[in-house]
Amino acid sequence: MSSADTLTFVTLLGSLRKASYNAAVARALPKLAPAGVRIEALGSIAAIPHYDADVQATGFPEAVTEMARKIGAADGVIIVTPEYNYSIPGVLKNAIDWLSRCSPQPFAAKPVAIQTASMGVLGGARAQYQLRQSLVFLDARVLNKPEVMIGQVAGKVDAQSLELTDQATRDFLAGQIASFADFARQLKR
Amino acid sequence: MSSADTLTFVTLLGSLRKASYNAAVARALPKLAPAGVRIEALGSIAAIPHYDADVQATGFPEAVTEMARKIGAADGVIIVTPEYNYSIPGVLKNAIDWLSRCSPQPFAAKPVAIQTASMGVLGGARAQYQLRQSLVFLDARVLNKPEVMIGQVAGKVDAQSLELTDQATRDFLAGQIASFADFARQLKR
Amino acid sequence: MSSADTLTFVTLLGSLRKASYNAAVARALPKLAPAGVRIEALGSIAAIPHYDADVQATGFPEAVTEMARKIGAADGVIIVTPEYNYSIPGVLKNAIDWLSRCSPQPFAAKPVAIQTASMGVLGGARAQYQLRQSLVFLDARVLNKPEVMIGQVAGKVDAQSLELTDQATRDFLAGQIASFADFARQLKR
Amino acid sequence: MSSADTLTFVTLLGSLRKASYNAAVARALPKLAPAGVRIEALGSIAAIPHYDADVQATGFPEAVTEMARKIGAADGVIIVTPEYNYSIPGVLKNAIDWLSRCSPQPFAAKPVAIQTASMGVLGGARAQYQLRQSLVFLDARVLNKPEVMIGQVAGKVDAQSLELTDQATRDFLAGQIASFADFARQLKR
Repeated sequence: MSSADTLTFVTLLGSLRKASYNAAVARALPKLAPAGVRIEALGSIAAIPHYDADVQATGFPEAVTEMARKIGAADGVIIVTPEYNYSIPGVLKNAIDWLSRCSPQPFAAKPVAIQTASMGVLGGARAQYQLRQSLVFLDARVLNKPEVMIGQVAGKVDAQSLELTDQATRDFLAGQIASFADFARQLKR
Repeated sequence: MSSADTLTFVTLLGSLRKASYNAAVARALPKLAPAGVRIEALGSIAAIPHYDADVQATGFPEAVTEMARKIGAADGVIIVTPEYNYSIPGVLKNAIDWLSRCSPQPFAAKPVAIQTASMGVLGGARAQYQLRQSLVFLDARVLNKPEVMIGQVAGKVDAQSLELTDQATRDFLAGQIASFADFARQLKR
Repeated sequence: MSSADTLTFVTLLGSLRKASYNAAVARALPKLAPAGVRIEALGSIAAIPHYDADVQATGFPEAVTEMARKIGAADGVIIVTPEYNYSIPGVLKNAIDWLSRCSPQPFAAKPVAIQTASMGVLGGARAQYQLRQSLVFLDARVLNKPEVMIGQVAGKVDAQSLELTDQATRDFLAGQIASFADFARQLKR
Repeated sequence: MSSADTLTFVTLLGSLRKASYNAAVARALPKLAPAGVRIEALGSIAAIPHYDADVQATGFPEAVTEMARKIGAADGVIIVTPEYNYSIPGVLKNAIDWLSRCSPQPFAAKPVAIQTASMGVLGGARAQYQLRQSLVFLDARVLNKPEVMIGQVAGKVDAQSLELTDQATRDFLAGQIASFADFARQLKR
């Protein structure tokens, strides 16, 4: 954990696509954090192989143990992800399936915030409640509000720079991070 | 599609583990089918890489197109899967994420039956409703009843032969397949 | 059931409020139906008392048996409802709880379409998947697509006449009813 | 709130039936609480009328304001409920729909524990995740573990006295209450 004064949050990104809108959201977060909050990106979930208990029996992949270590050391996790087929991407779920087998289980009692972005108007809402169900089992402490569902995201990211430029969205994200910091601080006490 | 007289169902397995209990369930199904119903295993989802839209842009992996073709040609799909973290395995969701991008989308209007098995008493129930939500988007026709949730499966599979030996479970599975055949025939008319 | 040529759908409304936006949607439906489809309103769920098995033991309320009879006789049910607290209204669920105890159970094998409207941008989406889960148990045949989630409904209903005036929404509803008629006809064959 | 030393939890019961198994569970709780924890029953949800915004506009029913006041004053709420149609009873949801309109909204930041009991093996599991979704909107702090799903409850309650007699179940409930007390104390700090 960080010092009493500073919080460190890590971002877990659900998309592999280079020009991913959700990656644009995740990249915007460090500058949107309030004073005393640092936000760092976890490694890509692309590096985590398909979960297979037979593979696990021979040892955890280093990408998994490294990610588990960083989550364990952080004061909170911000999951930023697209919605695929009304749920989270399989690749993200696969990372969670591996992480859930680590000991200590890194999500246990860990503050978690969720952000989804999509091209449609619903902004990935359907994926959020599916993800929350998994996080019950993992005993995470998931922030309730504000919920971040960024609809019609294509119009909010600059097509050239892939920067999240929509100011209302940036402000809303900053608000969630501030609430998340309060939430994480309360749970640390 | 098969002839008017015979139905072909394919099984989609959610586990990679060699000694998987769900694999034992899936292997039992061909002999539990009624006359006029053939059940064949699809290839392993292990062969399907992480979904990445950038990879898709360079072409679909052959394991995906082959699986999509077989599902498209079948009269129904039986999804047999463990529950991981109160949802379906990420590796299974990843296969669905790829398949959902194929054209024609192979689950569209396709009859689907769900079977889950777990060590606990709930038998994977929580994963089933998450999977059903994805199948709404895919416009599949999912059998409602009977729901197959095999709890405490370790006691129902022979530890040596890995055969599903519990007769009550075998009978229950046979009953679902018969109902699924009726369901698929109604939708074919 | 109706004759082979005509379908009768009944609407089940989830709101009690006189000026309900969802009521406005439901009232618009009869005129949006294609030729050969008649849409009639069921009685108000306000008339159905709190479900209590002790009350049931003394006999079903007439409002319940009447509604069950009408659903049983219809070719399909269109559920039109607001979202309360990320699910369907308790009063609507209560009606379903009573109806589910009737014999014959009126939703069994019955085509069902869902429409939700809300003031927010999500249009009641979260309630739809909760309702679908109940309808699995009831063995209903729920239309997958198109899904009708009418967001920001206040701007789509005339404040004086309480008529659904937004043409794009009316067209979208007409499209769902046409798809629902095809779906119901396929299941009747 | 209670003094720093004592916690008061209130039980919200989802069933109206006199011989309800869930009522038997709720009645058992006060004696299963650890030292320093008092558990009291809220009034019956039977007294709360159908939610109707037009009724609300004329004033909240006293049964609602009284229940909201008691929840607001408590250190936590234990919801004990059957599962109807794979969700919570409509009557319980209706009570929540009313309570959610009160100001202050009584579930905001309130610790909540969930207990379900059913005749089947799943013990009401399906209802729990639906209820949790509503509690996200209400910004409640819902205990993750242990989850209490009491299956085959008919064999665990004495048919004559309607007392929850199964010792393993009583011990499990006592364990959840102890965990819930820790959870509530952490959030009070």
